[in-house]
Amino acid sequence: MSIPDWVTALLPAKLEGPSLLSAERSNSSVDPAALAKLLHGEDQLALRARVEAILRQEGFDAQLAALPSQSRVEKMESSLRRGKHLKALRKQHNWDDASYTAAIGASGEMNVYGLHDKAFIKCLTDQTTDEQKKLFLEPAKADKIIGCYAQTELSHGSNVRGLETTATWDEKTGDFIIHSPQLTSAKWWIGTLGRTANYALVMAQLIVKGKNLGPHTFVVPVRSLETHEPLEGVYVGDIGPKFGYNSMDNGFVLFNHVRIPYVNMLARFQYVDPKTGEYKRRGSPAFVYGGMTYLRVGIAADAATTLARACAIAIRYAAIRKQFADEDKPKDGETAVLNYSLVQQRLLPLIATSYALYFACQELKDLYANYDKLLSAGKTQQAEALLAELHVQSCALKSHGTTISVEGIETCRRACGGHGYAQYSGIGHLYADMLPSVTYEGDNYMLTKQVSRSILKAAKLGVPLFQEAKNAKGGISNDDLVAAFARRVAFLTTQQQQLAKDGWSKNALLVPGWRLSTAYAQYVIVSAFARALPKLAAQLPAPTAQALGDLFRLHALVTLDGSASEFADAGALPAQLGSGIQRQKAIADALARVRPNAVNLVDGWAFSDLVLNSSLGREDGRVYEDIFRRAATNPVNELVFDPRPESKVIVKRREGAAKL
Amino acid sequence: MSIPDWVTALLPAKLEGPSLLSAERSNSSVDPAALAKLLHGEDQLALRARVEAILRQEGFDAQLAALPSQSRVEKMESSLRRGKHLKALRKQHNWDDASYTAAIGASGEMNVYGLHDKAFIKCLTDQTTDEQKKLFLEPAKADKIIGCYAQTELSHGSNVRGLETTATWDEKTGDFIIHSPQLTSAKWWIGTLGRTANYALVMAQLIVKGKNLGPHTFVVPVRSLETHEPLEGVYVGDIGPKFGYNSMDNGFVLFNHVRIPYVNMLARFQYVDPKTGEYKRRGSPAFVYGGMTYLRVGIAADAATTLARACAIAIRYAAIRKQFADEDKPKDGETAVLNYSLVQQRLLPLIATSYALYFACQELKDLYANYDKLLSAGKTQQAEALLAELHVQSCALKSHGTTISVEGIETCRRACGGHGYAQYSGIGHLYADMLPSVTYEGDNYMLTKQVSRSILKAAKLGVPLFQEAKNAKGGISNDDLVAAFARRVAFLTTQQQQLAKDGWSKNALLVPGWRLSTAYAQYVIVSAFARALPKLAAQLPAPTAQALGDLFRLHALVTLDGSASEFADAGALPAQLGSGIQRQKAIADALARVRPNAVNLVDGWAFSDLVLNSSLGREDGRVYEDIFRRAATNPVNELVFDPRPESKVIVKRREGAAKL
Repeated sequence: MSIPDWVTALLPAKLEGPSLLSAERSNSSVDPAALAKLLHGEDQLALRARVEAILRQEGFDAQLAALPSQSRVEKMESSLRRGKHLKALRKQHNWDDASYTAAIGASGEMNVYGLHDKAFIKCLTDQTTDEQKKLFLEPAKADKIIGCYAQTELSHGSNVRGLETTATWDEKTGDFIIHSPQLTSAKWWIGTLGRTANYALVMAQLIVKGKNLGPHTFVVPVRSLETHEPLEGVYVGDIGPKFGYNSMDNGFVLFNHVRIPYVNMLARFQYVDPKTGEYKRRGSPAFVYGGMTYLRVGIAADAATTLARACAIAIRYAAIRKQFADEDKPKDGETAVLNYSLVQQRLLPLIATSYALYFACQELKDLYANYDKLLSAGKTQQAEALLAELHVQSCALKSHGTTISVEGIETCRRACGGHGYAQYSGIGHLYADMLPSVTYEGDNYMLTKQVSRSILKAAKLGVPLFQEAKNAKGGISNDDLVAAFARRVAFLTTQQQQLAKDGWSKNALLVPGWRLSTAYAQYVIVSAFARALPKLAAQLPAPTAQALGDLFRLHALVTLDGSASEFADAGALPAQLGSGIQRQKAIADALARVRPNAVNLVDGWAFSDLVLNSSLGREDGRVYEDIFRRAATNPVNELVFDPRPESKVIVKRREGAAKL
Repeated sequence: MSIPDWVTALLPAKLEGPSLLSAERSNSSVDPAALAKLLHGEDQLALRARVEAILRQEGFDAQLAALPSQSRVEKMESSLRRGKHLKALRKQHNWDDASYTAAIGASGEMNVYGLHDKAFIKCLTDQTTDEQKKLFLEPAKADKIIGCYAQTELSHGSNVRGLETTATWDEKTGDFIIHSPQLTSAKWWIGTLGRTANYALVMAQLIVKGKNLGPHTFVVPVRSLETHEPLEGVYVGDIGPKFGYNSMDNGFVLFNHVRIPYVNMLARFQYVDPKTGEYKRRGSPAFVYGGMTYLRVGIAADAATTLARACAIAIRYAAIRKQFADEDKPKDGETAVLNYSLVQQRLLPLIATSYALYFACQELKDLYANYDKLLSAGKTQQAEALLAELHVQSCALKSHGTTISVEGIETCRRACGGHGYAQYSGIGHLYADMLPSVTYEGDNYMLTKQVSRSILKAAKLGVPLFQEAKNAKGGISNDDLVAAFARRVAFLTTQQQQLAKDGWSKNALLVPGWRLSTAYAQYVIVSAFARALPKLAAQLPAPTAQALGDLFRLHALVTLDGSASEFADAGALPAQLGSGIQRQKAIADALARVRPNAVNLVDGWAFSDLVLNSSLGREDGRVYEDIFRRAATNPVNELVFDPRPESKVIVKRREGAAKL
């Protein structure tokens, strides 16, 4: 579609975006560079800049822009191409793991090697013997074999013990036979399996001499290393289009009595005696559970970053999008929507949530590092005590953190009005791609059962899970706010114990347990954020540290207001926050303090335009020019329709879309 | 991908889906056929059955299944093809409007004629003179010209008065000149404009002799009727991919001093005197506003139906998806997830919400019919009094109804676990396509401003908006529940008045105004549902009517619990529901009453498998077989990857995917 001169004359438009964003930036005393250094560290920022410069040079930004218009088949092809490109760049630039990871993160939708690079290699690293490392891990690291991790089945996800795939030990040969007894035994949702992998780590019920020894992991070849066609007895494919994540080949596989060698059962922690068939354990698998904990914290940390990314887009756009005049100042003309109380109360608390979740994850990562140190030092007992706390906190953070993150992302999208719905907003796919995190690695509702039970167990043992549990005083200092959250958890814990005594069934107890878990997660986040503040005061310029203090207060007040009746039941509602209108006033005050720093606070996360991939969130504020450019060049504009209903012609094609 | 015999042997699997659904159906005393008759009427049910049989015969089900894998370009082509096919069928089968509408509804994503069939023709019908009807409406109805309705601009949506496009009356010729003064004046988001329309109804600022007379509507040709190329001075195209709704060509257009004849200004209610240039009004545009009211009620009613559709899928799947054993009955083996309290408390209230919203919309439709009758009878004053009530209720219902609908749909999707994320769930696209409704026809947040102000105005005039406003008595009958909702609205109204007196700015008042509007919408829904119950008792078999009564109670209790602190502030919390645990017990009791009827209550909406287009929601319960069939036949399985990073080959293609 060629562009007439009179349209070109409207570009570059004399639009206010850049000047409005500049004004926001200079009117705030928050230092985004100091925040970026705090959040990422100087080394990581430099590494990212290097990697992203290369990606831009290699044309990854254009590839990213093309993705939303592609068919599933086109996405798969470009995903494999992108994956190969990244691996070639890794070689060419001698990227270390951190650089490669940064490159993947900045290259848009996860490519088809994603689960090979992550899950397959990680699992082989953790659970193999030395012999198995040579056989499987080394070729995997060299990309000689491409693998995936196959646990979930068509009709079993969360319930691992209910898996149906079997691995039967053959007494005569010592081999294992992998089999899918029925349709629902099909491995399902397995990333990288659909089209890419030639190996799968298959979780299957180990059967020895007729006895089921529970789920174990086996290395199973699925496709020929030469032709890449499925091997005999293996029916494998892609499960089809999804709500998001469509550059990944989530796959299925069915096995028909597939024989694999003895050495293919991962044997670092347990094995079948090749002579007697006796099942034996060795070493402590504790740190595998520790690893799961770490994985959950990582998911929660991602949830924080992704929410921050959506905030960066929505806040910047709200700062330059003018709509209506403020009725209190009708003569000032149209005002930026970020000046409206209704927009502020939706968006500003999300900035606070992203920081709060970040600091909570940081604290948990430190706790994990301590645990790791104890374990390495052989202090098993102390390590295991820490592990219990890590477990409950990581389950709570993953469950609650991903839930509030995806809800927040969607709130950001809607706050962008109509344009939020377009792919050029850069938020829609963020939401769609983030959504699985509420389901995988422990469904968020299922996890609350584990959290509430751990809390009850700890309460029974007298473990002080929340040390601040005391009466909220008259004032409402930060400490008092934290105390209110602690008191609520204590109240719900006691209530839960009482309900069990009153004869509530375990099933019925799941609902109050879910409330307890949510309250606990909110407490974990609020208290971690409060503990971080004094340290931040030492690391940051005073106005920047103060702005984070304002975010803490906003986060705590909004969270408290969302469950006010629970706080009231617990007698944990500070007197000054007793009524809805008192809380609204306190929140309005907190919003007013955060408002001037909104843009700089999201700038602090230091997302590049390449990563944001958003017209609305552009760092320079040239929103409308970018929207227009993306629209005009979209491939649908290559079509000429014949809309006459009686005509058999559907479309003709033009030569290439417009270039702007 | 050919299917080995051993896989075929697993099909048809001996799966429990059908028997589990049958058991659910026979264990309930609710009569789905009676519900379907109540909700849709026998004629409409018969009409749908006829139309859908034709669509199935014509292969629409296969087309529907193909959609999620298509590129944007493929979607546009198939959308135009589908649109033509439907128009041909309309002719062939002599479909009336109701049949054609039903066919469009059952044919999946809205096709490219959507805004021509709806907005273009409706607007021409309402706002043209007889001369204009001949010129534009008649050819539009005969599909000789294809049109769209172009209001929103790149930087102005809600604020119609802020639109930038101008229509300047040329004193010499009497023509109008349509112009886009800058880039942000581009019409944007206009459905059917991107590739399809050759005419646009353009909303533009009418300028006569240098004076701006505000936004008016003009018929502007945009593409040649012969070549379908853009006309001189018109730059028009598709805005690109969106989060959903990708079979529609939402478009943009810029005008460069485009001259149109005098007759092209829609002139039923106002016109420019062709000789003097004087601006004149004629007739009453009141019923145009009435029409907007009706449109909003329609959106809310769609929100109810779409939520019901998601419920049908999620409930049926939850009734056959087994996961873990109930810990209270460990020996019974795995149990259907619908038996878990945590699943029930998420899903069952949504069944209640869909019915509640339906009955509220019905009541408002009746109110509209009364208004229409008064207007036709020339009783203008009475009609206008009703219009005020219609306005506030329709704004409230649209705003709150679409919000709870999209949230409910997403809750349904997540409750389906991993499979909810796959397109074969049939929920993801439902959500994505429903989402714009929270933004268009009045952004849901913006509308709350109008609602709260109307309430305040009515309160000032002493209009009894909520007659049940009285102290909730000790008991908690249905009436008492409604009274609690009314009392809360009264309290928030008084509070809002007080805040204004206390000097809160208009901007600051938007937040409590939003709370007031939400409370009012919930009151409208709860009270309408309560009023419907006695009538339902006369129309339905007793157990079915009773089941709807149970839904009322569940809906009221859950809604009340969600804002318990507001009810408490208002002194409207019935004593028996004073604490969180009391409310949880009451809700648990209500859930237990609804649980046995869950499947039959969603069956009552009578969605066909064609419309649901969902593996999880199949009426016969053959969920896993259908998932497997869709996965195996998805087009990605035609690709053979070469995953070796060093190989330049990306993919080879196989002949066609598997057919099952």
